[in-house]
Amino acid sequence: MEDKSVHLPTYSDIAQAAMRIKGQAIITPLLRSDLLDEITGAKVFLKPENLQLTGSFKFRGAFNAITNLDAGERKKGVLTISSGNHAQGVAEAARRLDVDATILMPADAPRIKLERTKRSGAKVILFDREQDDRDTISARIAEETGATFIHPYDNPHVIAGQGTCGLEICIEMQKRGLVPDHILVCTGGGGLTAGIALAAKHYFSAASVHSCEPAGFDDYRRSLISGKCERNETLGGSVCEAILTPSPGKIGFAINKELLGEGFVFSDEEALDAVAFAFNELKLVVEPGGAAALAALLQKGKKFADKTIVVTLSGGNIDPDVLARALL
Amino acid sequence: MEDKSVHLPTYSDIAQAAMRIKGQAIITPLLRSDLLDEITGAKVFLKPENLQLTGSFKFRGAFNAITNLDAGERKKGVLTISSGNHAQGVAEAARRLDVDATILMPADAPRIKLERTKRSGAKVILFDREQDDRDTISARIAEETGATFIHPYDNPHVIAGQGTCGLEICIEMQKRGLVPDHILVCTGGGGLTAGIALAAKHYFSAASVHSCEPAGFDDYRRSLISGKCERNETLGGSVCEAILTPSPGKIGFAINKELLGEGFVFSDEEALDAVAFAFNELKLVVEPGGAAALAALLQKGKKFADKTIVVTLSGGNIDPDVLARALL
Repeated sequence: MEDKSVHLPTYSDIAQAAMRIKGQAIITPLLRSDLLDEITGAKVFLKPENLQLTGSFKFRGAFNAITNLDAGERKKGVLTISSGNHAQGVAEAARRLDVDATILMPADAPRIKLERTKRSGAKVILFDREQDDRDTISARIAEETGATFIHPYDNPHVIAGQGTCGLEICIEMQKRGLVPDHILVCTGGGGLTAGIALAAKHYFSAASVHSCEPAGFDDYRRSLISGKCERNETLGGSVCEAILTPSPGKIGFAINKELLGEGFVFSDEEALDAVAFAFNELKLVVEPGGAAALAALLQKGKKFADKTIVVTLSGGNIDPDVLARALL
Repeated sequence: MEDKSVHLPTYSDIAQAAMRIKGQAIITPLLRSDLLDEITGAKVFLKPENLQLTGSFKFRGAFNAITNLDAGERKKGVLTISSGNHAQGVAEAARRLDVDATILMPADAPRIKLERTKRSGAKVILFDREQDDRDTISARIAEETGATFIHPYDNPHVIAGQGTCGLEICIEMQKRGLVPDHILVCTGGGGLTAGIALAAKHYFSAASVHSCEPAGFDDYRRSLISGKCERNETLGGSVCEAILTPSPGKIGFAINKELLGEGFVFSDEEALDAVAFAFNELKLVVEPGGAAALAALLQKGKKFADKTIVVTLSGGNIDPDVLARALL
């Protein structure tokens, strides 16, 4: 039975989120690369969310979700579980809104993400991925403090917030008199993907939005084919740690199953090659999960020749040793 | 006696250059960083020319200079001496204009710069910094081929081309209703600095434009004080290889001595810290010489509190081992 209490976000929620995050989140530019155009034969536009506050798009959704809490809820604080980018997004959004944040992070999360989450003043609680039950810890904290759990993607306000990234893409493309044929999105739980798909549908209904996932973690691609939420067999083992999720978020999938085109998949090696391409050719620092859409594009070679393509670069919080591996 | 035959570029040459490079050079965005604002207490705008074609602003001047050659001159090709960014700028501009380019490069130039210059199809001739006389080699090639020498900064068309970077800064600031108090520029021979100073004078006559140089290579700072072109004692030994020049270019200095404010100086360590800051916090790949203005800004702490500052990030062609050194 469908849960009727969950509100599916719409385009108007994104427009509202854009007003809420205005002056807080950065309006990231659309960038071009002549080399990328030459390689693909397409007209490619890059949306560099690595340049966003906290180094990823996650700030958008976190800020929008917290502003939607009432005064009483805000007083009790917020809580989340994340290995990184969502952790930083929630921590920084909470800091700006003067709300206490508690973040459960796996002890083996990338160092840069741990440090940056703490820097925003959040209370970070480490757990052991193997030994500890994160949900039990989280439930206990929620009960003790009354804090609101901010899910990284299965939350309508988070999805609407991420959708502001798509709204900016659409407004800027329209301003330049351009119509995107394909929009490639780095996909984990599907919150950013759903938000962008909603915005794209409103502005450019003929554009195809594609999920981009590492091989072996293509739950979204398979779910789009079967029409129901499929799961990944394993939870770890790809260099794209930022976008590894067990299965599509329910709210996002309800949107995406209606709006997305074919799902794309790439290898870890292709993800690292995309990180190196971003570093050497685009002069942008992008983490492997944030390079997912670029990896998918580069893998397709000239398949999109003569098309107008938008590629999201969703995050840039890479540890130097992973970058070194990509540049080898 | 002043050489009256040399035309000093003016604002209108920059406006003309902007029309020539339109659709070729990238209009780079102005970026913000809340963290940088917090650290400095200022309102900081970054002009990331590392995102420009060839990874530095040099393409602007090179393209403008070559388009100013007549058909006969173009047929005989162009020639330059450069350890890197100007080499790539000339090579890529020549490729796009279907002009032969010969580039003399020191054998110890950064690998990334050598490779990228060759990639644009230029004929690269390596010389030994100690053993070979680069000017003799260059003069011989010019005599044999009739190629036009494109000086990296002491050329009015090159300066006008670099000025388009300043023009973009001014147009964008004006569009946002902002008036810069200070503009910090990475300074080698002073071509970019002169171009930006001319544009700034036209739009924002009260803005102070500052040259930024590594300690020990502060020929510009000292020349501005004495009013004549001073020389550096040595030619190498700073990590900021891209902006080491023996003394200010004559044409640029004739402009800069009238227009610039105080010259700023920073240490190699501060340059590497700025590279690391750009990498970790801005998610931008910037080379040490390209981080000169950022290094100068960070060194000043809160000196510019409450001011509106523009900082150029002039290039991003960094070898991975230099980045590794910065990130240590």
